Amino acid sequence: MLCVNVELKERRYPIHIGENLLTETSVYPLTAGDKVMIVTNETIAPLYLHTVTATLEKIGCQVSSVQLKDGEKYKTLDSLNEIFTALLRENHGRDTILIALGGGVIGDVAGYAAASYQRGIRFIQIPTTLLSQVDSSVGGKTAVNHELGKNMIGAFYQPISVIIDTTTLNTLPKREINAGLAEVIKYGAILDLPFFEWLEQHIDNLVALNPADLQHCIARCCQIKADVVARDETEKGDRALLNLGHTFGHAIETYLGYGNWLHGEAVAVGSMMAAALSELLGNISKKDVGRLEKLLARANLPTISPDNMQPEDYLPHMMRDKKVLAGKLRLVLLKSLGQAYVATDTDKSLVLDAIRACTQFD
Amino acid sequence: MLCVNVELKERRYPIHIGENLLTETSVYPLTAGDKVMIVTNETIAPLYLHTVTATLEKIGCQVSSVQLKDGEKYKTLDSLNEIFTALLRENHGRDTILIALGGGVIGDVAGYAAASYQRGIRFIQIPTTLLSQVDSSVGGKTAVNHELGKNMIGAFYQPISVIIDTTTLNTLPKREINAGLAEVIKYGAILDLPFFEWLEQHIDNLVALNPADLQHCIARCCQIKADVVARDETEKGDRALLNLGHTFGHAIETYLGYGNWLHGEAVAVGSMMAAALSELLGNISKKDVGRLEKLLARANLPTISPDNMQPEDYLPHMMRDKKVLAGKLRLVLLKSLGQAYVATDTDKSLVLDAIRACTQFD
Ligand SMILES: NC(=O)c1ccc[n+]([C@@H]2O[C@H](COP(=O)([O-])OP(=O)(O)OC[C@H]3O[C@@H](n4cnc5c(N)ncnc54)[C@H](O)[C@@H]3O)[C@@H](O)[C@H]2O)c1
Ligand SMILES: NC(=O)c1ccc[n+]([C@@H]2O[C@H](COP(=O)([O-])OP(=O)(O)OC[C@H]3O[C@@H](n4cnc5c(N)ncnc54)[C@H](O)[C@@H]3O)[C@@H](O)[C@H]2O)c1
Ligand SMILES: [Zn+2]
Ligand SMILES: [Zn+2]
Repeated sequence: MLCVNVELKERRYPIHIGENLLTETSVYPLTAGDKVMIVTNETIAPLYLHTVTATLEKIGCQVSSVQLKDGEKYKTLDSLNEIFTALLRENHGRDTILIALGGGVIGDVAGYAAASYQRGIRFIQIPTTLLSQVDSSVGGKTAVNHELGKNMIGAFYQPISVIIDTTTLNTLPKREINAGLAEVIKYGAILDLPFFEWLEQHIDNLVALNPADLQHCIARCCQIKADVVARDETEKGDRALLNLGHTFGHAIETYLGYGNWLHGEAVAVGSMMAAALSELLGNISKKDVGRLEKLLARANLPTISPDNMQPEDYLPHMMRDKKVLAGKLRLVLLKSLGQAYVATDTDKSLVLDAIRACTQFD
Repeated sequence: MLCVNVELKERRYPIHIGENLLTETSVYPLTAGDKVMIVTNETIAPLYLHTVTATLEKIGCQVSSVQLKDGEKYKTLDSLNEIFTALLRENHGRDTILIALGGGVIGDVAGYAAASYQRGIRFIQIPTTLLSQVDSSVGGKTAVNHELGKNMIGAFYQPISVIIDTTTLNTLPKREINAGLAEVIKYGAILDLPFFEWLEQHIDNLVALNPADLQHCIARCCQIKADVVARDETEKGDRALLNLGHTFGHAIETYLGYGNWLHGEAVAVGSMMAAALSELLGNISKKDVGRLEKLLARANLPTISPDNMQPEDYLPHMMRDKKVLAGKLRLVLLKSLGQAYVATDTDKSLVLDAIRACTQFD
């Protein structure tokens, strides 16, 4: 088992990473008599709810659970209210602990519910997708969507502990694994060349879910994100680097309609575009762009723009990004492999050229 | 104009108290170009929205507004969502400032909306009821109700400034003024004997809305609450004293159904019961109980239990209070006039005797 500590101004909390942790009583920061409410969904419940409940009961906890519908489209205030109703029906007080058992959607909704129920109760994250294990469960961002915008309503709220059982990835669809790897590769590209090189050696093992390599990989990603978050808890500066490829990616997601491409797939192509733009600006070499492309492709990720999307379709969506300030595009680019920076006011014709470089014309 | 500063761990903010402050540009912590969204309701908008908008436009702000329906029953997630919709429709970003213009209901909903929109934007309180001026606008508690419980969903979130224009009280129904005075008298009783004595001298002026006395009174209450909150921001200890009369009062509100008695009216009777119980326990004299009763009566507040409620009707409701811990009643009682304490595990038959002492039997 590996352990990464997230150090925040007010307190620290641990991320435990290992095999079969769901059944490991010692990793749960709970004691006999604690009341807990597990938030999960209809897909994950049949796979893991019983296991987690049994472990918690072994500790001596009083366990209830609530199952949401599966999907990004249920990441709403209504789902939040379902959690509150479950808590209130069973008279849960301020000392109840909420447990998020699932991917990023469950983590985000349950985290926001924990932040809001009686103005804040403790919560534990048990992320079960690769994306949530390396990204959404670290950093304390919680949210639900609004009809008019994704993640528009939420809170910064930290869990008391994160428990990552890599074994849960065995049931996750391969496409979701690959999407998670896009964020993994992103961490290497923006902040950690040695990790990027390690990925070049081990990507096939990760795709094949080799347990030891998965643990190392997840721990490294959590550490990178935890360091960034510790420096910048409420996203005023450094945290922006984590958005490599995301502004381009959001344009793809919005253009295709949410749910057609997975977020990670869009981020993969977006990262390629950011790399291509970095090359055009003379920062990185053609060879480095090629290394990124190869690594993404080995993780079965797309590296070129969707067939039905034209280069001209990107900019209008990109200009509506949250990171746009006073009409100026702010993009995360690469100074070199393993070193990202925020570029403000990049020439739009160069941006278009970079998008073209990642588009297949017949 | 008077000014009280609320000193918190992370920062401080001012409460400005005076006549005609709505039109006083200098009290708004805003500058030309700021985008603001005013949250108010259908009753208050025709009275004050135009005035506030004009002042903000004079400063050079871009002003939008959203009007909720009037009433406690609209203190819901749905109203919250209306605010988000208004913000998103007009593309409000993280630097927008939300302004709560109204009583405690508007303050609580708008405050929670500010805490949640894009994970937190700045907000300003302009409380327009006496209750919100002396109580709900200070302390950073924000919330909405759930079908199954009042104030169950919310956040601790502080405004950047509170602007109290005492002139707004001229349009407030007298019954609401009196209800606010119940909380005013509570502050004296729990923490400040000299203020209690000042109230004995000036209560008629307050009922008559004498501007100078109102300002002094509101400033004193804000200072008392601000001091308590500074010592106990997230309600672990001292803040409990502010609940004098509230556990009895909630029993009345719940028994009669919310909205029949005003909160302040129930608190008035509840304070009498807490005083009677304090007397039974040998803490305070019959004379002190009489002083409290007289002061409440001069503010046109009830001092005895509602006609249709029996002494036996109280305890079942009181046992369901948030402050009950492990089946033990925790009540705020008086050691002396001006000095409250939290009593745990008070003999239930004495509690019943105290309720009887405040019941009129024919
Ligand atoms: N809070 C943050 O910092 C942050 C960061 C990145 C993404 N996010 C959010 O995370 C969400 C995406 O997360 P996600 O990619 O985990 O999607 P997800 O939660 O929708 O999970 C993907 C799918 O896998 C299923 N699933 C989860 N675990 C499984 C398992 N072990 N076995 C089989 N099926 C399983 C889910 O039910 C779902 O159908 C988005 O809403 C995004 O906004 C948040
Ligand atoms: N956050 C806190 O710490 C805290 C503390 C105490 C109470 N509260 C909350 O405050 C709420 C009660 O607040 P309230 O007593 O102000 O009730 P309220 O907001 O419902 O206002 C009472 C009535 O007066 C009207 N009104 C407001 N200002 C007016 C004016 N100047 N002229 C004419 N009419 C006016 C309102 O529209 C409403 O009809 C409750 O929801 C309670 O839970 C919160
Ligand atoms: Zn991402
Ligand atoms: Zn009150």
